[in-house]
Amino acid sequence: MAAVTYEHIKTCAQSGARLGRLHTPHGTVETPIFMPVGTLATVKTLSPEELEDMSAQIILANTYHLWLRPGEDIVKEAGGLHKFMNWDRPILTDSGGFQVFSLSERRKITEEGVHFRNHINGEKLFLPPEKAMQIQNDLGPDVMMAFDECPPYPAEHSYMKSSVERTSRWAERCLEAHARPEEQALFGIVQGGEYKDLRRQSAEDLVSMNFPGYAIGGLSVGEPKDVMNEMLEFTTPLLPDDKPRYLMGVGSADALIDGAIRGVDMFDCVLPTRIARNGSCMTSHGRVTVRNAKYARDFGPLDENCNCHVCRNYSRAYIRHLVKANETFGFRLTSYHNLYFLLELMRKVRQAIQEDRLLDFREEFFEQYGFNRPDAKNF
Amino acid sequence: MAAVTYEHIKTCAQSGARLGRLHTPHGTVETPIFMPVGTLATVKTLSPEELEDMSAQIILANTYHLWLRPGEDIVKEAGGLHKFMNWDRPILTDSGGFQVFSLSERRKITEEGVHFRNHINGEKLFLPPEKAMQIQNDLGPDVMMAFDECPPYPAEHSYMKSSVERTSRWAERCLEAHARPEEQALFGIVQGGEYKDLRRQSAEDLVSMNFPGYAIGGLSVGEPKDVMNEMLEFTTPLLPDDKPRYLMGVGSADALIDGAIRGVDMFDCVLPTRIARNGSCMTSHGRVTVRNAKYARDFGPLDENCNCHVCRNYSRAYIRHLVKANETFGFRLTSYHNLYFLLELMRKVRQAIQEDRLLDFREEFFEQYGFNRPDAKNF
Ligand SMILES: [Zn+2]
Ligand SMILES: [Zn+2]
Repeated sequence: MAAVTYEHIKTCAQSGARLGRLHTPHGTVETPIFMPVGTLATVKTLSPEELEDMSAQIILANTYHLWLRPGEDIVKEAGGLHKFMNWDRPILTDSGGFQVFSLSERRKITEEGVHFRNHINGEKLFLPPEKAMQIQNDLGPDVMMAFDECPPYPAEHSYMKSSVERTSRWAERCLEAHARPEEQALFGIVQGGEYKDLRRQSAEDLVSMNFPGYAIGGLSVGEPKDVMNEMLEFTTPLLPDDKPRYLMGVGSADALIDGAIRGVDMFDCVLPTRIARNGSCMTSHGRVTVRNAKYARDFGPLDENCNCHVCRNYSRAYIRHLVKANETFGFRLTSYHNLYFLLELMRKVRQAIQEDRLLDFREEFFEQYGFNRPDAKNF
Repeated sequence: MAAVTYEHIKTCAQSGARLGRLHTPHGTVETPIFMPVGTLATVKTLSPEELEDMSAQIILANTYHLWLRPGEDIVKEAGGLHKFMNWDRPILTDSGGFQVFSLSERRKITEEGVHFRNHINGEKLFLPPEKAMQIQNDLGPDVMMAFDECPPYPAEHSYMKSSVERTSRWAERCLEAHARPEEQALFGIVQGGEYKDLRRQSAEDLVSMNFPGYAIGGLSVGEPKDVMNEMLEFTTPLLPDDKPRYLMGVGSADALIDGAIRGVDMFDCVLPTRIARNGSCMTSHGRVTVRNAKYARDFGPLDENCNCHVCRNYSRAYIRHLVKANETFGFRLTSYHNLYFLLELMRKVRQAIQEDRLLDFREEFFEQYGFNRPDAKNF
């Protein structure tokens, strides 16, 4: 049996969204779920206790970053990522592909793998699928990702086709190289950009390899939202019902709801913690940029509809003061609230699926958040 | 009755150190005590819950910094510092004097007060004793400090004498201007540098004004440790037994013990949190600079004799990784441990006083820490 299995609970009669459970070696995750990103084995500014306190069920860490610092050998010697960072709930690591393609300089893709210079000191490195597997086997997350090529957006059909085919060949090599399938589940990644024929080709290739889960990559890379939703609508039905589906790099509230409606079970994104470090907060009435002068004497909470530890104890005025003075505790507070906000959103999404009313929930949420406004932007 | 009173419990038969209690509007503090510094209404990187968790009994905030950001009017409108920062245990604020003399440019001291340019945007400001009182009355700490001149070290006797006399006149004006003596206790500050006659003059002036507590200022400003200890030995007997004594700006482990032995009840310093942000930790065996390469594969705790949350859950290797990657959580862990270390040290000091063995404790502690080594430095 695979290390991670998906249990389907029910499908929302109104929307088609899935309610389920992911069973992993480190416990069960209720889906659909948002996964906070802990790039370097720490979700920026926060402690594992705080993540548990906000009911984070699973977090993501980055293979590329941990490979460079501190090195997967040190993490392995520490007993794996869970022990190293003191987090005993599930962890998913990405494959390193996205970072190699977005951060590194002078990269060269060959059939064998990717040659590049790392973003810290320019050192020459080579990452083939087998190395991506070895690193993830050493890091020891519950879920590993296959090493894929992440093509630029937009890309020509001909380039995308050869890229998809290479990603399928690399996926085979990943399956072959994966040393611990009983303890760690390896997910395949469907690519294909905005070309339906290539999405179909990629999905069929990967499904034939029988991965225990599938990610949808190459979306949320700059394309319009309706293109993303259209590609999701096309792609998820190509994936098996009894396996989890993970939409990579998506963390805006509207996209989480729209993804769930299209059958996605898992999401991750740095958005909530990244904007938090600019003093920007997600609230039930849209974004609040707490460093703005108008909050200097606002002694109310970030979001009066939020029941998180931050909103119960701290004012916008205090948080603004900290953020403007560049005080770490300010960024802790905004990061905590933003992640709580998305985790709570996913809890409400699961409840709405349970009650067969996710489309109604979407409408209420979008209206209150401001997504329905004609000038809606910057969410 | 004064807002803050000192209850003497016992004197250590071996050392002369005092065990006592400070009764304040926000609860009781066991003395001798170390006070973590929360410059801008936040103890850098930490939450109020974490400070409670490590048994911090009282914290310090900075009048000068809060005057500039966010402004004492905003803190007052929030309901005072305690509410603003969500800390309901005692708070002490300094007078702003030290910052005006150490941070500001082109300052000019007159009988009326100090003219200077602030360190953020160079704006011209004027701080007379009355303004220092108004700001502290608005901030609302349990203990306020009189506005004093902090002369440079070393200073000529003639300059120091006129400075001490001005500080006494300013102390009178502070008492006069203090608007809330029933709710906030105003402490006087004894100056005089390394001149015993001036220490005596300053102490006698201030004691005659009957403050509810006394600080000893102008030490730990660059003079040798034996000079500091000699001045303490000379000065504390000049202060009334029934009032608390506060040695400003001292936070190294040896100086805390040596100060307690000389009758000091309260200490504060940015040292533990400042060195923490360089990845430097106080341990029972001396300083550990955790970013050093030799800790890369050290999976033990920062201090095997420490029972703090950090030492129980995180390794040197993990903390080193975070600190080297400049991750906030690393600085949270080192800051937490260092403050815990000093608070725990003071708890042991109180216990040793209770057992009339503070000199023995000093010897044991110094030996283990390394203070007794001939090349002892950098503690
Ligand atoms: Zn909140
Ligand atoms: Zn510790």
